[in-house]
Amino acid sequence: MADILKDKERVWDNRTNNFGLLPESNVELLKKEFKEVKTTSLQRLALQEPQCGFGELGVCCRMCYMGPCRIDVFDGGPKVGVCGATADTIVARNLLRETVGGAASHTEHAMDIAEVLKEVAEGKISTYMIKDEEKLRRVAQNLGIKTDGKDIKEIAKEVAEISLEDFKRLEKEPAVWIKAYTPKSSYEQLEKLGVIPHNVWRPIMNAMHRTSMGNDADPVNIMLADLQMGLVDGLGLTMATELSDVLFGTPKPIRSWANLAVIKEDYVNIAVHGHNPLLSEKIVEWAEKLNDKAKALGAKGINIVGVCCTGNEVLMRHGVPLAANEFQAELAIVTGALEAMVVDYQCVWPILSDVASCYHTKLITTMPFVKIPGATHIEYSPEKADDVAKQVIEIALEAYKQREPSRVHIPDSMEEIIAGFSVEALVEVLSKLSPEDPLKPLIDNIVNGNIFGVVAIVGCPNPKTRRLAFTERMIKGLIKNNVLVIVTGCIAHIAGQTGFLNPNKVDSFEVGDGLKQVLKALGNAAGLNSLPVAIHMGSCVDNSRIGVLLKALSEKLGLKVSDLPVVASAPELISEKAISIGTWALALGVTVHVCPPPRILGGPKVREILTKDLKTLTGGEAYVECDPELAVKGILDRIRQKRIALNLPVPEMVQI
Amino acid sequence: MADILKDKERVWDNRTNNFGLLPESNVELLKKEFKEVKTTSLQRLALQEPQCGFGELGVCCRMCYMGPCRIDVFDGGPKVGVCGATADTIVARNLLRETVGGAASHTEHAMDIAEVLKEVAEGKISTYMIKDEEKLRRVAQNLGIKTDGKDIKEIAKEVAEISLEDFKRLEKEPAVWIKAYTPKSSYEQLEKLGVIPHNVWRPIMNAMHRTSMGNDADPVNIMLADLQMGLVDGLGLTMATELSDVLFGTPKPIRSWANLAVIKEDYVNIAVHGHNPLLSEKIVEWAEKLNDKAKALGAKGINIVGVCCTGNEVLMRHGVPLAANEFQAELAIVTGALEAMVVDYQCVWPILSDVASCYHTKLITTMPFVKIPGATHIEYSPEKADDVAKQVIEIALEAYKQREPSRVHIPDSMEEIIAGFSVEALVEVLSKLSPEDPLKPLIDNIVNGNIFGVVAIVGCPNPKTRRLAFTERMIKGLIKNNVLVIVTGCIAHIAGQTGFLNPNKVDSFEVGDGLKQVLKALGNAAGLNSLPVAIHMGSCVDNSRIGVLLKALSEKLGLKVSDLPVVASAPELISEKAISIGTWALALGVTVHVCPPPRILGGPKVREILTKDLKTLTGGEAYVECDPELAVKGILDRIRQKRIALNLPVPEMVQI
Repeated sequence: MADILKDKERVWDNRTNNFGLLPESNVELLKKEFKEVKTTSLQRLALQEPQCGFGELGVCCRMCYMGPCRIDVFDGGPKVGVCGATADTIVARNLLRETVGGAASHTEHAMDIAEVLKEVAEGKISTYMIKDEEKLRRVAQNLGIKTDGKDIKEIAKEVAEISLEDFKRLEKEPAVWIKAYTPKSSYEQLEKLGVIPHNVWRPIMNAMHRTSMGNDADPVNIMLADLQMGLVDGLGLTMATELSDVLFGTPKPIRSWANLAVIKEDYVNIAVHGHNPLLSEKIVEWAEKLNDKAKALGAKGINIVGVCCTGNEVLMRHGVPLAANEFQAELAIVTGALEAMVVDYQCVWPILSDVASCYHTKLITTMPFVKIPGATHIEYSPEKADDVAKQVIEIALEAYKQREPSRVHIPDSMEEIIAGFSVEALVEVLSKLSPEDPLKPLIDNIVNGNIFGVVAIVGCPNPKTRRLAFTERMIKGLIKNNVLVIVTGCIAHIAGQTGFLNPNKVDSFEVGDGLKQVLKALGNAAGLNSLPVAIHMGSCVDNSRIGVLLKALSEKLGLKVSDLPVVASAPELISEKAISIGTWALALGVTVHVCPPPRILGGPKVREILTKDLKTLTGGEAYVECDPELAVKGILDRIRQKRIALNLPVPEMVQI
Repeated sequence: MADILKDKERVWDNRTNNFGLLPESNVELLKKEFKEVKTTSLQRLALQEPQCGFGELGVCCRMCYMGPCRIDVFDGGPKVGVCGATADTIVARNLLRETVGGAASHTEHAMDIAEVLKEVAEGKISTYMIKDEEKLRRVAQNLGIKTDGKDIKEIAKEVAEISLEDFKRLEKEPAVWIKAYTPKSSYEQLEKLGVIPHNVWRPIMNAMHRTSMGNDADPVNIMLADLQMGLVDGLGLTMATELSDVLFGTPKPIRSWANLAVIKEDYVNIAVHGHNPLLSEKIVEWAEKLNDKAKALGAKGINIVGVCCTGNEVLMRHGVPLAANEFQAELAIVTGALEAMVVDYQCVWPILSDVASCYHTKLITTMPFVKIPGATHIEYSPEKADDVAKQVIEIALEAYKQREPSRVHIPDSMEEIIAGFSVEALVEVLSKLSPEDPLKPLIDNIVNGNIFGVVAIVGCPNPKTRRLAFTERMIKGLIKNNVLVIVTGCIAHIAGQTGFLNPNKVDSFEVGDGLKQVLKALGNAAGLNSLPVAIHMGSCVDNSRIGVLLKALSEKLGLKVSDLPVVASAPELISEKAISIGTWALALGVTVHVCPPPRILGGPKVREILTKDLKTLTGGEAYVECDPELAVKGILDRIRQKRIALNLPVPEMVQI
């Protein structure tokens, strides 16, 4: 027995120390973490392996206490649970609940912003203001609000009220945001399927009800609810992005830096982590105001760095450098040079508390419903935003005094990046080439094949796939083949750290000639030598920006979204939010590549719906492939099919 | 290998054919089912055993794709998931999601009724009417609506609107139903804990958000959200019951019969199954109207029988006999004499479709979000209620022609029952003894020890515990010790089938002298020889009636709910709804016994909160015990403690 455990430990050690293709800057800190904290994400993953096959296939059901039940996908074992639920029923119900988890996250994020907008409009709080009045007018118009002769606060109030009404409407009328922002042809198709939600809350309640034991057992019916939940998610994404732009400004191209090296040894370093910009905006503001306090301590100032999507939010609007993706958040602490990590919500791993406890770093939670044992909790509310931001900075200043210089190690690789390509910013660049018809140059270049297709790579940095450098290898394969790559979320961090967002590094990658030509032309229009090989469109909720672009393209061309040579990929997904975003994209008609495999493989009917039937229902297709080069090939094949259907030229694929 | 499988099969066969203490009427049909359908719930359960220990302990996490992760509750394995979530974090999050599953079910049930009430009040539908105006006025008054000078439709509209407002309120004011129906001292305590919900929808959204990966990791914080979700559930239960009474009448004591024998060989038999009375009320109505059509086919008429909680609903208001609990639903089909089983929602096992396909029985689903492959779907909506009911009956009449008499086997045991003890009905009985102060006789008899305490036994019939006759043994032990037993839901079916609801069978059980005296006195007041040894208070949502009774008792006596010698027990729980009902009871301050163990045992902190800390927070206590006699002992001990604290006489326990 002892020997077996020893052997197992050796296997774990090998897995733990198998850094694969991870860049040296990560490996250094992973080793430091293992030495100083006795844990790393790779080690925790190794300890969990082999992971439960029933869970991975989606055929484990814990919806009631006759279970837990498990379906044997091979022969010999049970084919139904105690209640008679089949693998497909179980898989579909589990998937719907995952989608709810994601959609509830995004919609609550949106609601938090909408509530602040309402309070600002009503003059109830003075901590925030409407920064982008032009955007507000555009959003209002999109939502069908007449803006003529109304003052800005009046418009803001109406926008906020319509937004909040979308959460709670009882009437069976379509949610306004979904009607306004869904590409027309997709909307028509989804209306025929009967899945347009009337509000946000009822579908969530209904999904939790219908997936409970003894309700919906029909995988097709459940998958329709899943599509609806995808639309609820899309509403959350879109509202969050659009209203954040109103309150904090619509992003424009901005230069900054990426990788852990943006943590600076001679500064008081504060990392902002999570998703919602409400607090981090304030921290950026107050860091500047309180900069002298840091100087008084002998530091050069206060250095705010971004983690995960909160990082993307403040990068796009303030140029705050990107320190770490979700996977690297703990490594930011391990540098020993981080005074505070302040978190709002989502993707905040509880391990951060253990890691911070080994250093002088203060982990600060701020949201009432996100607490972590061991962390300092300073409760944020919109009206207290300034106070909370100040307190956070004071805590960081205090912690700076405790920093142990001997334990500081910051890897030195740092990449220049350009970020913040909102749709508005893209249109502005394009309109320099074609003022009358800004989308024309983009379309022309897709048509002529300079751009083979567009692939949005989004989502998370999963320890399972980080070792494989899955994202990096995919981007390399795609740009070689003239694919215009768009990135958001933690994938944007990875892209930034690899140089894919560096406009000066286009020539250091193998980029297809057509694409290179387009990037340089657009770059020149933007006052740069070139655009970088990947376009940073923002945080995870900013996938809505891609939705807005798809709507513009499909409606301009009179094509369905599914006709466009566009694919989305979440190659390293972690979060339920990635599932719900993917479901939204599938509902719109997008082909979506994913890895790790969603937990559907145990349900043959669900698998068929997502990978085949959906093509005729919404035009979408789920595509699972866990080898990065094969994934590129599969994506290119799918774009090729779409180009052929559109009678567009189809160049040969370049070896990847 | 083949030998191992053979051995395994033998074990399964033994488990499958181990009928334990199940009554012969069940065993006959289980054997018939196994022969004719090749399945039974016991066999399906046996095939699932051993069930996953990680799942049972609550330490399996599938909230993200770094997982599935599992915590080793022994030494040697991982203590955290990849993200760092501990056993307690995982257990608490899983539990909260289970509670959401239950609360979403009950609140959507309530909302369905509230929407119908609104349409009735507005004259938009004519399929339903307000049957109990007096109850409507009482509900209105409870909700703080002034009724003077208002006509009944006006009051109904206001009640419906306030009810619907409780779903969607944005303002941070307490939900009206919760404020109105929660016992005062419990409310004050829950207010201090900050868990009074403002509406139904936001806590559900928030719970799904905060339990998603990278959010709330603090088990205490999550358990507070769980208490809140319990209150959301209580709102659902209460609104569902109260508004059903308004639309369909407040139950009064009514005589009927229980057990599968209520299915009659010479009738066209239709079973109504599920939870919401909206459709079943109509089926009862139309069965009478279309009775002659059955006679024309040579049958004696149409016989509606009740399954699960829809069964309880139509039993209480129309005397429809109780054919089968959830566990027996498939056996009702196996009798070969059931023409149709029409289902609405919740606890409807998908296996029913397979079972029905082996007989002439038509399984008819009716709710848009509850479909079962193989079933006939006739979609219900309030305005089509009459048509749908007629269609269902026509299908049953048609099916009757296909019945194969040689395959009919109906066990002959049948029990008389008396049911329908709403609080109003109980008060009416009590007021015959004490017109001025109806609660006085009940309180006096608790004080003098004739009634040692009150135990509400509620919930489901789990195949795991049915073999043990868990409920029957518990009731026997309790009544021996002068405990007044209240039953609802599928437990009421079990009680009915065992004779516990038969007013003529009080002397065939060992009943404590004090209790027997009380039952006879109350029975006489009600025009019976005796009340039965268990009091039928209704369906699962009617657990709210127990809440109303607790509120009346605690407020009259100026005692906390937790001071009262009252315990709730869900001894055979299946559904997430049982978890959410139990959570509601814990929030009110009730001691709640449960078996099978809730999935909390892997989380030491969560276990401690529920079994210890809660006593000082709300007064509630979770008590897990899976031996029926020990459970009785544990419950009696807990009542004894409460009696001692109140300085009430404490008689010796009778051997059980």
